[in-house]
Amino acid sequence: MANETVTAAKGFLAAGVACGIKSSGRMDLGLIHCPEGATAAGVFTTNKITSASVNVCRENVRRGQIKAFVVNSGNANACTGKVGRANAMVMCKKAAKELDTDQGSVLVASTGIIGEQLPMRKVAGGISAAAEKLAGGETAGTNFAKAIMTTDTEPKQGARVFEISGEEVRIGAAVKGAGMIGPNMATTICVITTDAVISKPLLIKALKRAVGASLNRLTVDGHQSTNDTAVIMSSGQAGNKIIKSQCPRYRKFLKNLIDLSRELAEKMALGAEGATRMFQVNIEGAASRKDAAKAARAVADYDLVKCAVHGADPNWGRIICAVGSSGVRVDGTKLSCYIGDVAVFRNGQPTRFDRKKVSDIIGQEKHEITVDLGAGTCSDYCYGCDLSREYITVNADYHT
Amino acid sequence: MANETVTAAKGFLAAGVACGIKSSGRMDLGLIHCPEGATAAGVFTTNKITSASVNVCRENVRRGQIKAFVVNSGNANACTGKVGRANAMVMCKKAAKELDTDQGSVLVASTGIIGEQLPMRKVAGGISAAAEKLAGGETAGTNFAKAIMTTDTEPKQGARVFEISGEEVRIGAAVKGAGMIGPNMATTICVITTDAVISKPLLIKALKRAVGASLNRLTVDGHQSTNDTAVIMSSGQAGNKIIKSQCPRYRKFLKNLIDLSRELAEKMALGAEGATRMFQVNIEGAASRKDAAKAARAVADYDLVKCAVHGADPNWGRIICAVGSSGVRVDGTKLSCYIGDVAVFRNGQPTRFDRKKVSDIIGQEKHEITVDLGAGTCSDYCYGCDLSREYITVNADYHT
Repeated sequence: MANETVTAAKGFLAAGVACGIKSSGRMDLGLIHCPEGATAAGVFTTNKITSASVNVCRENVRRGQIKAFVVNSGNANACTGKVGRANAMVMCKKAAKELDTDQGSVLVASTGIIGEQLPMRKVAGGISAAAEKLAGGETAGTNFAKAIMTTDTEPKQGARVFEISGEEVRIGAAVKGAGMIGPNMATTICVITTDAVISKPLLIKALKRAVGASLNRLTVDGHQSTNDTAVIMSSGQAGNKIIKSQCPRYRKFLKNLIDLSRELAEKMALGAEGATRMFQVNIEGAASRKDAAKAARAVADYDLVKCAVHGADPNWGRIICAVGSSGVRVDGTKLSCYIGDVAVFRNGQPTRFDRKKVSDIIGQEKHEITVDLGAGTCSDYCYGCDLSREYITVNADYHT
Repeated sequence: MANETVTAAKGFLAAGVACGIKSSGRMDLGLIHCPEGATAAGVFTTNKITSASVNVCRENVRRGQIKAFVVNSGNANACTGKVGRANAMVMCKKAAKELDTDQGSVLVASTGIIGEQLPMRKVAGGISAAAEKLAGGETAGTNFAKAIMTTDTEPKQGARVFEISGEEVRIGAAVKGAGMIGPNMATTICVITTDAVISKPLLIKALKRAVGASLNRLTVDGHQSTNDTAVIMSSGQAGNKIIKSQCPRYRKFLKNLIDLSRELAEKMALGAEGATRMFQVNIEGAASRKDAAKAARAVADYDLVKCAVHGADPNWGRIICAVGSSGVRVDGTKLSCYIGDVAVFRNGQPTRFDRKKVSDIIGQEKHEITVDLGAGTCSDYCYGCDLSREYITVNADYHT
């Protein structure tokens, strides 16, 4: 498939420009336009402190048709008080004026440094420049994906094409995020476009399911940002029979949406700050689903596990320590741990295993850690990545 | 004061030897002996998975007089099943035989790699060798402190001398721990000796208070180990009027114990794996004490804050992000943040502050971060340290 960007779906134009928010001169303002209007849904950070852009976006996405989405990088517009809120609204207003629509039909997101006011003259100039550059096609879509990047090393995007009721349906997406990523929502910023004909309630349902099965499962450093935003916009131009119940058409749409979201989550894990590899933590035999999720996250978040993965070191004791420390119910006489398919700890007893083989498994781009708590029948999973010196370099040496 | 070790208090002998558990040839077995017997109390990890030595130690400390404490480093004797439990008991039995006492009067602790069986022939030889070397004085005490080290870069010990009812009372202590340290108990291994005359109930009470105000406030990487053990032993040889109620004598003892414990906690923070500096997080204006503790720990545990501290970067947005992500109650219009005495965020609005000055504050050996949640009147605090490349080196490159 040629176009694997946010312009893959019919009815969407995109642009990315550099307007000077980033001192590096890189692209820092992205715009998506859906001239015929789109049904939209969003999920946002559960951090108690939310950016001004999250607040304005949350209000506008609840309204009717959405025409545009404006995103800036390099500045989070968070912890910026009343001035910040006014600036987020000015961003919507400026985009609305350029695109001849009303400001309530414009969504907004910001990502970057917390606590500084947006340079609004530059932002306004950027919105005008982006509006002029709006186009379909791969280049325009990729420019949008580049414009929302912060410490990401490359644009993260993808698309799916499939048939519903004999019509070709497309989903395109761009995502950014390399640090400050914890589950329970999201992914700093994720923009999904589709031309599927689907009712708003089902669109919301599908977005929540897809985010829950992908971006919510990813932890890079365990914390949600003040700005996490995932939005889906549907132009309805595919011409398929409308999806308005949880019928087979919905399930096909959902399957493709989840599949694409997981692809993006994996790209985020592998592209995380300093990450050289990723891993999936599976918890089985938990007393409850909640216990399983808690234990999985405890393992994926644990710096000592992340360091061991970085060193391809089969130091499974750290995995057990993380599980035990998480406070979930465990039967110590049944507790078992597997790295890949190798049992390293079984029924509370260490096994003899081939350390070289397990080190090779950990050394792969992606591997699975499975822990059986022996306390029930519930399971859950989570994605994590290794912790390297490069993470420290990115986050300590780069001064604000 | 000359002797600032575990032998500072009257009635205690100590030794440290190398018996070959550590391949480096460093000291790895420590022994404390109290020939006349001691009243003892202990607090242990709340990790659901506890080492065999923690289980045996917990049982024995509940009994009557304690005569000895044997500690090995280099191997945690955790996740070692029935064999591990038998080995922990053999350690007590061997020490009891050497010291002509019964095995129930011997406490045991282990620290090091999880999931491997102890080399019992070496351990037994080490116990015999240590028993022969038992002595009072500074050198013997320091050898004990060295023998319990794992990734610690130097022995951590200290002592206090003070008067109770006209008699000189002493407290001495040794502690180890540089990683896998999270609050809610303890500190890998902490051994405190005193010659104060004090009843067992008051000794337990004092230990819990002291650990709660010091070692429990420290987080290096947020997780408790399977082996956390803090034990206090009192020989009662100071001859002071017995402490058996919360009288002024108890308060004086407690004050000195807390003071010493905090000194050790600070030594642990500054000596943590890769740490170059430490910080204290104060949370004020919380809706509950629990909220305050949770928010303090969220800030101290957050890798992005730890990296910013490492880089002496006044990136306060990460502090606010951690607080918001912790789920505690916050009034966004009153939320304020101070680094040292400089307000960087006040009543939900960023301030203009001298970045160079704040960077200098962070660059000190220790600084304070204060967050006012604006949601109530409760407060709490926590200690943390920075996250450096060296932490990764210690924990990724060193293979098990």
